[in-house]
Amino acid sequence: MAIRYEHIKTCKQTGARIGKLHTPHGTIDTPIFMPVGTLATVKTMTPEELADIGSQIILSNTYHLWLRPGSDIIREAGGLHKFMNWDRPILTDSGGFQVFSLSDRRKIEEEGVHFRSHLDGSKLFLSPEKAMDIQHDLGSDIMMAFDECPPFPAEKKYVKDSIERTSRWAERCLNHHVKEGHDKNQALFGIVQGGEYSDLRAQSAKELVAMDFPGYSIGGLSVGEPKPIMYRVLEETVPFLPEDKPRYLMGVGSPDALIEGVIRGIDMFDCVLPTRIARNGTTMTSKGRVVVKNKKFERDFTPLDPGCDCYTCRNYTKAYLRHLFKTDEILGLRLTTYHNLYFLLKLMEDIRTAILNDQLMDFKEAFFESYGLNVENPKNF
Amino acid sequence: MAIRYEHIKTCKQTGARIGKLHTPHGTIDTPIFMPVGTLATVKTMTPEELADIGSQIILSNTYHLWLRPGSDIIREAGGLHKFMNWDRPILTDSGGFQVFSLSDRRKIEEEGVHFRSHLDGSKLFLSPEKAMDIQHDLGSDIMMAFDECPPFPAEKKYVKDSIERTSRWAERCLNHHVKEGHDKNQALFGIVQGGEYSDLRAQSAKELVAMDFPGYSIGGLSVGEPKPIMYRVLEETVPFLPEDKPRYLMGVGSPDALIEGVIRGIDMFDCVLPTRIARNGTTMTSKGRVVVKNKKFERDFTPLDPGCDCYTCRNYTKAYLRHLFKTDEILGLRLTTYHNLYFLLKLMEDIRTAILNDQLMDFKEAFFESYGLNVENPKNF
Repeated sequence: MAIRYEHIKTCKQTGARIGKLHTPHGTIDTPIFMPVGTLATVKTMTPEELADIGSQIILSNTYHLWLRPGSDIIREAGGLHKFMNWDRPILTDSGGFQVFSLSDRRKIEEEGVHFRSHLDGSKLFLSPEKAMDIQHDLGSDIMMAFDECPPFPAEKKYVKDSIERTSRWAERCLNHHVKEGHDKNQALFGIVQGGEYSDLRAQSAKELVAMDFPGYSIGGLSVGEPKPIMYRVLEETVPFLPEDKPRYLMGVGSPDALIEGVIRGIDMFDCVLPTRIARNGTTMTSKGRVVVKNKKFERDFTPLDPGCDCYTCRNYTKAYLRHLFKTDEILGLRLTTYHNLYFLLKLMEDIRTAILNDQLMDFKEAFFESYGLNVENPKNF
Repeated sequence: MAIRYEHIKTCKQTGARIGKLHTPHGTIDTPIFMPVGTLATVKTMTPEELADIGSQIILSNTYHLWLRPGSDIIREAGGLHKFMNWDRPILTDSGGFQVFSLSDRRKIEEEGVHFRSHLDGSKLFLSPEKAMDIQHDLGSDIMMAFDECPPFPAEKKYVKDSIERTSRWAERCLNHHVKEGHDKNQALFGIVQGGEYSDLRAQSAKELVAMDFPGYSIGGLSVGEPKPIMYRVLEETVPFLPEDKPRYLMGVGSPDALIEGVIRGIDMFDCVLPTRIARNGTTMTSKGRVVVKNKKFERDFTPLDPGCDCYTCRNYTKAYLRHLFKTDEILGLRLTTYHNLYFLLKLMEDIRTAILNDQLMDFKEAFFESYGLNVENPKNF
């Protein structure tokens, strides 16, 4: 078994849990947020900076690396860890989400998906077996089964057909993975789908759990549905997942949803949100969002977040950050990215401490109040 | 006196010199290369990274900072050092070079230069006094007098009128600087001009030296003239400059010109070349230029320069750098910038060691051979 989940404690206030996930490249404290390094780099950051801010694991994208530089090149480099100079754990997605995002240029068949490259329009084919082969080339610690991620909203009939195919594909992924002998060093997760439909989520979870994966992802959320629907689906899905395996909620990275997800039993999260908004000059602070380009910061010689002890906040003012963004300087993107990732990783650390102290509900209330989430129509993150 | 030049040794093989330049923010070993931080940031780099690679002093641009964020904002921030978090010496240019580059939108008068902003076309006026005021706001350790930099080629009559005005402007700069009382903490350099004309260079140098500046710049070179002309002008100009003051050759950063400049008595250099070409994927190595985007590096899992011990070369392969450039990833720009600056700063360190050992000519020959400069029509850097 490539990975092992060790349960440490359950919060008496919320039922949230802390644990340790042991992987071939080291142990992760859960619940955890995973920075996204789509193209074998977490945008603007070095691996040393990621380690400095406490990144225990990162995510990278199968589809994008398959196209560029090509999974054969990464295999020849000695795997993704060596290629990108990151020696801690890596999780890779299956490519499914990206392929299904290309809705106008793909055709789904039982065998797999025919589609055209978003780069040059060339014809490509991705199947459960192919998604495994690529991830074997990458050598990630945690791999994802090839699934279909239905859009929101979607007709129930469509979603039912889809989850049943996703289950068949999951079995093919598992068979191919085990047959290829990579299951000792790479852990394959099944992905629960089912849209907003309670019974389909239950069906999907049960079918996957019957295949005994070393971990389970919950996909098809954070795709445009209102947050209350996401939270309801989590409440209806997690009970079907085994206690002794890690649970990964895909594509979630707003502070409120991280806290709500943990309360509902989630151990792992990823999202491009903190890095993407950082490159647009939007930052997350203990008092909510700060958009550094704002004119009002022109002569503000205080840090982004006076309560934050990250490199950016210890050394630079909002006036300087604003100047860097107004002049399109790369250092600006670096400093806000660094800060946002630090903020979310510190949030997860605070969440783990709150669970340890049986105070996660208290922590949530204080955080929501400070972040400005306890108002009518709060901003989305 | 804000700065003091201390002569250490003259190379018996070449007549080149090493020295120490004492400034309010620390002592610099000369000859030195100064990375350029146009807009209060050396593009892609943090101050800590600049220090790591041995940057002893950086340059920043008066004209650009005057426009963005505004010199008043930098003054209110506590000066440029504090604004950008750099506590080592800073040299600022006078804005003259940038203003005169806007050849189609400026009008030169005795009082100063009327021109239009390159950003929004707004009307601006820069004079010797204004250039001093801005640099006082910035608080740089070394300031430049406001000069005119004639283009190459230029008619002798034009250049003669120009250097005489530049001398009158230099005197106004000096008077304003001393009157404002900043001469204790900020050293003002005069800039020798004169195009390719030996007698005009001599005239300009003599007029400025008579004003007793604490250092002298040589401007109007590396503006398109062939290198042999630049080297001849240096040979004809340096003898007019005092032995006990630093000499700064503006805008030069190719390895061959750095070595040739040092041999001709230059102590300080700056240029955007290493950082600009780095962002285009072109690097300087001990074996000459390497363009990382080249297809031939697709599966090259060796460092950029196997003989280099910089962060980039110790941790990444050409295949990875190529991938980052092909995918427009910011980390690529960071890694090549870091390497190129490291390469030039290491070159200057090697030059200083060669002078100490009276071996600069031997060093030059070995370097030129290795870098590929001893061939017919070598590449330009």
